[in-house]
Amino acid sequence: MTIMKFDATHAGIQEQIPAYQAEVSRIHRMIHEKTGAGSDFLGWVDWAERLDRDELQRMQQLAQQWKGKFDTLVVCGIGGSYLGARAAIEMIRGLYPETGPEVIFAGNTFSSTYMSQVLKHLQGRNVLLNVISKSGTTTETALAFRMLRRFMEETYGPEEARKRIFATTDKARGTLKELADREGYASFVIPDDIGGRYSVMTPVGLLPMALAGIDIQAAVQGYRDVSEDLNTDDLAANPAYQYAVCRRILDQKGYTAEMFVTYEPQLGMLAEWWKQLVGESEGKDGKGILPDSATFSTDLHSLGQFIQQGRKVLFETVLQVQEPGENLIIPSDADNGDNLNYLAGRDLHWVNQKAFEGTLAAHEQDGGVPNLVIEIPDFSAHTFGYLCGWFFLAAAMTCYLLGINPFNQPGVEIYKKNMFHLLGKPGYEK
Amino acid sequence: MTIMKFDATHAGIQEQIPAYQAEVSRIHRMIHEKTGAGSDFLGWVDWAERLDRDELQRMQQLAQQWKGKFDTLVVCGIGGSYLGARAAIEMIRGLYPETGPEVIFAGNTFSSTYMSQVLKHLQGRNVLLNVISKSGTTTETALAFRMLRRFMEETYGPEEARKRIFATTDKARGTLKELADREGYASFVIPDDIGGRYSVMTPVGLLPMALAGIDIQAAVQGYRDVSEDLNTDDLAANPAYQYAVCRRILDQKGYTAEMFVTYEPQLGMLAEWWKQLVGESEGKDGKGILPDSATFSTDLHSLGQFIQQGRKVLFETVLQVQEPGENLIIPSDADNGDNLNYLAGRDLHWVNQKAFEGTLAAHEQDGGVPNLVIEIPDFSAHTFGYLCGWFFLAAAMTCYLLGINPFNQPGVEIYKKNMFHLLGKPGYEK
Repeated sequence: MTIMKFDATHAGIQEQIPAYQAEVSRIHRMIHEKTGAGSDFLGWVDWAERLDRDELQRMQQLAQQWKGKFDTLVVCGIGGSYLGARAAIEMIRGLYPETGPEVIFAGNTFSSTYMSQVLKHLQGRNVLLNVISKSGTTTETALAFRMLRRFMEETYGPEEARKRIFATTDKARGTLKELADREGYASFVIPDDIGGRYSVMTPVGLLPMALAGIDIQAAVQGYRDVSEDLNTDDLAANPAYQYAVCRRILDQKGYTAEMFVTYEPQLGMLAEWWKQLVGESEGKDGKGILPDSATFSTDLHSLGQFIQQGRKVLFETVLQVQEPGENLIIPSDADNGDNLNYLAGRDLHWVNQKAFEGTLAAHEQDGGVPNLVIEIPDFSAHTFGYLCGWFFLAAAMTCYLLGINPFNQPGVEIYKKNMFHLLGKPGYEK
Repeated sequence: MTIMKFDATHAGIQEQIPAYQAEVSRIHRMIHEKTGAGSDFLGWVDWAERLDRDELQRMQQLAQQWKGKFDTLVVCGIGGSYLGARAAIEMIRGLYPETGPEVIFAGNTFSSTYMSQVLKHLQGRNVLLNVISKSGTTTETALAFRMLRRFMEETYGPEEARKRIFATTDKARGTLKELADREGYASFVIPDDIGGRYSVMTPVGLLPMALAGIDIQAAVQGYRDVSEDLNTDDLAANPAYQYAVCRRILDQKGYTAEMFVTYEPQLGMLAEWWKQLVGESEGKDGKGILPDSATFSTDLHSLGQFIQQGRKVLFETVLQVQEPGENLIIPSDADNGDNLNYLAGRDLHWVNQKAFEGTLAAHEQDGGVPNLVIEIPDFSAHTFGYLCGWFFLAAAMTCYLLGINPFNQPGVEIYKKNMFHLLGKPGYEK
């Protein structure tokens, strides 16, 4: 019984879904039998079973050992080694959590101002550092790590710094693995058969989550549950596949952009994670839907006008949360100078739900914008793990339906080659 | 002599710009003579002259009076009463500033978790509160203000709370103005002839900036300078108009989305401000370019694949910064285990510049993505004021070229009416 609901009725295309059953069944077998393009990177499919229990325990122990003994966690990584952990930590803890360390993300930019400010911000704090890179050669991450490592060694001395630095990297080779072995950093494995954007349930995401105070056992259980719930090719019983099919139908109808909408600021980074997952998976061969995102009702006061009455290029996919992490009762006011007493005694999440319902009708009926609605129960670690698996499967299905390998990213190297040449990197002289 | 440069050579359309000269001249007169559609909201055009010096001084005095005597500023507003101040504060101070108050933005969401966490976060802090709303009836802002005001009164007592709350609102009427007068809050004026998305250089943006420790006199000087520099209909001498024209040329070529790109995380909210400015100005009558944004090189590791090889729907507008706020020299490393010593002694901003150059070539030449490049000198308050006026003028021109009123937003009310009905607001029963 899936805990995430999917509703295509506000896109007016639900009758067209069943026609994809045969194609979906074929691709479902392709995914599970690992016979499709890019199948070397299908490790996430049965990851719930294959996940190394010892390593999971090591991460939990490390988090337990440091709990309450540090105040700042620096996570140094980029792309798939950045977005998943940040999406999880912000979704589950919220943007102003009461407990747990401050979490700072570095190694994802060449901005000198950002890096300089982070280094100053760390002064006088009690810092742990998790560097995440399969090869260790990703330039943004390696450069930041060079500076952060120096900061750690100067602040805590080389011995103590070694205990405070954790490397998530290849199991056997690469510059980061070699450095970690030489220095004696605790290190955790990025599997060979899981690409960056599908890696959040490996130590890439789980270690920062654990150090941030999140119950990673619950996240893994969510991932295990979704792997079972969605192990069916029956479109009627598989909402992730329905979503994958709806994207293709809307694509064919001429919609060139998809706006991933939430009503919760703490889901802003989840939207960024989703953008990488779908955009990098399907944006090839001149194909794919431009992945975009917005946080409502905030952005109804900025992007709402365009969505409502601008050019009809986009459809919306709304991720709606049933139970908020925290709720507030709207107080009564004796003066009622703001005329809001009609809401007194209501809870704020109820108002947010009505904003969602009112917007759905406005965009669908008045705006003519197709809306797909995905419902999740809450902000829990279990739900996070569940939705990761849900979107992984949807991404694989929607790409294969388009005839695209969901697991490579051949276009990402081009700017790097140009940049390496300009930087004078040995081997890139020409 | 304009301090912002514009370069259309990477979009391959520069030869087509001059053909728009006559149309641009006509619209330039329309803007300055206030004869076009929506001309009641052209107050920003001569705002540098009309700006109330006494009020500017009052804001500076208020900021001076409280300087060092509080640690947290809460800015309560949404849309145009939110994005400009946040864009300015993050651009000018950076994301981890060493000095000045923490700035928290509220009143821009119905999220109960967000609001609840903000209220808890404020416990034990020394708080000032600036509420920003023309009418006082914007529901997100009014609801949050009801709760924040209660917090302030309970924390500081009614007398002291009155001194710590500042209202930016209509000069004469509305529920917020009435409340401010009744309670004796210091209040500042939102002019009648400047709409929300064009209002950042009024007290809407200037008061939060001043309280955050920013030199608003310098920002106003930048705005004054750009108003003079761009007071010409000569396309060859007016880069903002060139940008406006290029958007229309690319629109006609079939590009339906514009990605506003920066290489600095502290410009992420400036991109959100820009999205409102252009999207809400031109997204009408089924027209307009979908405004999107990204922060590079971060998002090259997520959206880069789609841009490079996905469907060709977008062009990029890159806002490039010449001098960073802070810089760092890349240290040498005795081991060179990360193979980065080829960069030792270089500064990090130089690397960021090479990332920009390498990406520009990759996207333009290999990807076939048109790139417009706008250059700003630095992150200063003066530059912020300057670029605001630059983009205002560009937005007005690009909309009028499309035959769109740049200053209304008729579509924004539709979701509100639906929501008010669902909330049971008096007057919205049907």
